[in-house]
Amino acid sequence: MTIVETPKTAAVDMRTMAKNAREAAARLAVLRPAAKNAALVAMADAFLAHRARIKAENEKDLAAGREKGLSAAMLDRLTLNDKRIDAMAAGLREVALLDDPVGEIYEMKTRPNGLRIGRMRMPFGVIGIIYESRPNVTADAGALCVKSGNAVILRGGSEAIHSNRILATIMDDAGAAAGLPANCIQLVPTTDRAAVQDMLRLNGLIDLIIPRGGKSLIEMVMENSTIPVIKHYDGNCHVYVDATADLDMAASIVLNSKAQRTGVCNAAESLLVHEAVAAEFLPRIGTDLTAANVEIRGDEKVRKYIPAAKPATEDDHRAEFLDLIISAAVVPSLDAAVDWINEYGSHHTEAIVTRDHDSAMKFTTAVDSACVHINASTRFSDGGEYGMGCEIGISTDKLHARGPMGLKELTTYKFIVFGEGQIRV
Amino acid sequence: MTIVETPKTAAVDMRTMAKNAREAAARLAVLRPAAKNAALVAMADAFLAHRARIKAENEKDLAAGREKGLSAAMLDRLTLNDKRIDAMAAGLREVALLDDPVGEIYEMKTRPNGLRIGRMRMPFGVIGIIYESRPNVTADAGALCVKSGNAVILRGGSEAIHSNRILATIMDDAGAAAGLPANCIQLVPTTDRAAVQDMLRLNGLIDLIIPRGGKSLIEMVMENSTIPVIKHYDGNCHVYVDATADLDMAASIVLNSKAQRTGVCNAAESLLVHEAVAAEFLPRIGTDLTAANVEIRGDEKVRKYIPAAKPATEDDHRAEFLDLIISAAVVPSLDAAVDWINEYGSHHTEAIVTRDHDSAMKFTTAVDSACVHINASTRFSDGGEYGMGCEIGISTDKLHARGPMGLKELTTYKFIVFGEGQIRV
Repeated sequence: MTIVETPKTAAVDMRTMAKNAREAAARLAVLRPAAKNAALVAMADAFLAHRARIKAENEKDLAAGREKGLSAAMLDRLTLNDKRIDAMAAGLREVALLDDPVGEIYEMKTRPNGLRIGRMRMPFGVIGIIYESRPNVTADAGALCVKSGNAVILRGGSEAIHSNRILATIMDDAGAAAGLPANCIQLVPTTDRAAVQDMLRLNGLIDLIIPRGGKSLIEMVMENSTIPVIKHYDGNCHVYVDATADLDMAASIVLNSKAQRTGVCNAAESLLVHEAVAAEFLPRIGTDLTAANVEIRGDEKVRKYIPAAKPATEDDHRAEFLDLIISAAVVPSLDAAVDWINEYGSHHTEAIVTRDHDSAMKFTTAVDSACVHINASTRFSDGGEYGMGCEIGISTDKLHARGPMGLKELTTYKFIVFGEGQIRV
Repeated sequence: MTIVETPKTAAVDMRTMAKNAREAAARLAVLRPAAKNAALVAMADAFLAHRARIKAENEKDLAAGREKGLSAAMLDRLTLNDKRIDAMAAGLREVALLDDPVGEIYEMKTRPNGLRIGRMRMPFGVIGIIYESRPNVTADAGALCVKSGNAVILRGGSEAIHSNRILATIMDDAGAAAGLPANCIQLVPTTDRAAVQDMLRLNGLIDLIIPRGGKSLIEMVMENSTIPVIKHYDGNCHVYVDATADLDMAASIVLNSKAQRTGVCNAAESLLVHEAVAAEFLPRIGTDLTAANVEIRGDEKVRKYIPAAKPATEDDHRAEFLDLIISAAVVPSLDAAVDWINEYGSHHTEAIVTRDHDSAMKFTTAVDSACVHINASTRFSDGGEYGMGCEIGISTDKLHARGPMGLKELTTYKFIVFGEGQIRV
């Protein structure tokens, strides 16, 4: 295994990478599940066998990061130590154990003329993933794409370039040695932005682009891609406490949604309280949130009951804080809560706490978000928690996949028609 | 009902149209099926009540078409006579009778912690449809969007502008009178190209763009849209006659696929024959096709057995003729046929004629097309024939919907989670 040191300015031939991926995809699409699973296990073994090499490459990223003055938190996210390498390997083994989605035949029915018509689940072909996250995304995304029969072109963030390159190289080499076609997993070897621009215009060679990252990355991809895109955008998740809510339950769910973990897209960022319970609920949740070090930014009515709260701006109500901060407002009705969420929210995950059946069903139907939770924390919005076994991310789009995306969401389908010589009259 | 004569150069405020559609969509999304169905029937009644007005507006398009020198076939496609108005009204009544896809809850399961998690089918919101077809698409597309709970912005071809405007106005007015929110069905009132450019960049207001038309239209949409697109592109459909084919069946399927109707995307444009049966099959299919006035353009091996065939160019093998022309080639194996189809085809619909089970299953799995038919004519590739009850078009994309798109394909889903106070630990 040789890692060629490619300077930042090197022109990468994205078209050749995509063509190679396309060839790999055609062969990968018809592989049996056992062959793909064996390759995933071989990749896990290779991570452990090449620990030292992974840590050495990772150290180059850490050194560059320290030089650039990255924060301690960011350096920690970037670090690949033994524990994290073990976790990546374990992750690959878990993906190998999941059901294979490819080839599933469903909705089969027989037509009056005897034709048997159904759908068969198929890989997309080639998926491009553009991300800014931790290097473990390289391992996760690569494994999920291979398992779902797709070749993948990965484009990670510049901070993790050395780590990402060694991980992708180990996976592709180990996979090929175990019988996968070469180039199932390729990483764009430079941090040159022009390579991304090239990649986004290879429709016909790349079937799907999944961007995961900040606003400017997503917007750049949307502006420039001629390939279909599934976005993984921000989560301004709401908890709405209805007039009939069990207030103990409401307090528990608000606190868990906001503070159980803050730097994640399914953490609550906004609290809405029905005016009928504002006087009773707001003082106690104010105390609970303050005790958990959460800063509250409220409208006038909120501040009446929580005097320590800061005034909320319009921007606060729209914000994804990813921090110990929550915006809050009082609403006059469930309808007003729904309108507020559809206007200020990011269509990710919203929770209602209520004892009223009509409120629960109306909220479920009318809120235009990927995930709607009734009497449950927003923090459950996750592929693993939803029982999907894994997750490539959480789509904030509506086309194809919405909410947590698992293996099934990395596939398309074809119609299959079995006849005995039927012609159309 | 007043039709304002908008000059071609008028600036249309697409953003306002889209905002109005968005408001309509929010109300339409929560309407009961009966309310939507009653509105569709009211629209059908209104078509019949306003026959004279429809024909008068249509005559303006026909007069302009005659002046522009449109062919007799194109003028016929453009014409709305009593029979076609009856057919449009009947079409709306049929859509009213279909099952409503909105609100269906599926894949519901209970997690170990007691959370009940499933998916609920929901409208997209606002759909933009850009088309160059006959004016009846205005009626069909409008009805299917309303039924699936979506507001729609229609942008038809310039040749049919008067017809499209009166149809959309009648539908929206009749729908509103029957209780639908206003602006469920809007037509872009000009033929100004700038309006389309504006429309394609209203992401956040429009959820999905469906272009139906020629190559230049589709490419313009792909280049410019920041909204997700589902393309309805061309069909270079293949029939492959395998080594073990029943040759009577093969002849029947080839003839039906090519010649039963030619101007449609699911007609066969290309014939592939396994070399083992070329000597027996090609002469007879040559005679059959010639008798049906089909011109054959073949490779060297084909011309050996059908001397009257013209030589096929590379372009012929890629062409969607939409005419009494078929390209033909001899292939040495099923694998070669699959490779040929994946290379030269348009990923629409392909048929194999075979008696061999392995060939049938391998072809089904390896051909990368929206529809794969075993021993059945390509002409069955159609929403109605597939038992979907209707069709908004045939997607040649892989994301979300592939092949015939019915009401279900005009919806998205949300995850719904019913809890009893669960929090994440």
